Amino acid sequence: MKLKLVVSLLLLITGSAAFSQEKQTKAAVEKGLIKVSIMYPYAEGKTFNMEYYETKHMPMVAGFLGANLVKYTIEKGLASGIPNQPLPFMAIGTFYVKSLSDYQAAIGPNRDAIRADFANYTNISPVILVSEVVK
Amino acid sequence: MKLKLVVSLLLLITGSAAFSQEKQTKAAVEKGLIKVSIMYPYAEGKTFNMEYYETKHMPMVAGFLGANLVKYTIEKGLASGIPNQPLPFMAIGTFYVKSLSDYQAAIGPNRDAIRADFANYTNISPVILVSEVVK
Repeated sequence: MKLKLVVSLLLLITGSAAFSQEKQTKAAVEKGLIKVSIMYPYAEGKTFNMEYYETKHMPMVAGFLGANLVKYTIEKGLASGIPNQPLPFMAIGTFYVKSLSDYQAAIGPNRDAIRADFANYTNISPVILVSEVVK
Repeated sequence: MKLKLVVSLLLLITGSAAFSQEKQTKAAVEKGLIKVSIMYPYAEGKTFNMEYYETKHMPMVAGFLGANLVKYTIEKGLASGIPNQPLPFMAIGTFYVKSLSDYQAAIGPNRDAIRADFANYTNISPVILVSEVVK
């Protein structure tokens, strides 16, 4: 019974410790990170192949970024949130990185390969926003 | 010694189980979520008070959303990622929700209060993007 009690207590303690550390790490990791968002504006006649973007293009670019990349996300535009306004963006891909200069240094030598791949999934010229995670 | 071994093994097992579950939960929660992004375009003469936005406006709106709100984020625009292009957005606030119709139902009766608060932090008319988390 004593062993069982010790073990149960340990499970409880390590469980909460792991949970609490995970929460702290997550908050600490996100705030202050740099986001590089590649935003594809919607317009009549514009096309975007989400499957290619998700399975080929984004993994390729992510592969150039190494340990500087914390995570990347992809979202698909559905509608404007304002009635009777056109969809602002068809898609947005976002890289969360620790350092903007490291991002630029990693992308620089691969810019031609990245641009050459655009034609495989879209005819849109993207807008690129560099921002900082506040919360 | 035997107790020590049992305890060490348990620590190892529960540690990995907690980590793996956390990863699974996170991925499952994010994919398919709806993002409502309120994007504040930059232009000459436009102003944005980030402190008010972070401490007053966003918490107020988040408070209207109840259990439908999974999380919300705030980012501050720094630059365009394309040389010699103007900053696309000064700030973006994003609500991650489970249901768009529940979001609209919660915002509807509070729209006037939300709009009235705009003047307290900005003179920008936002663009609103409704999108779906693909990855």
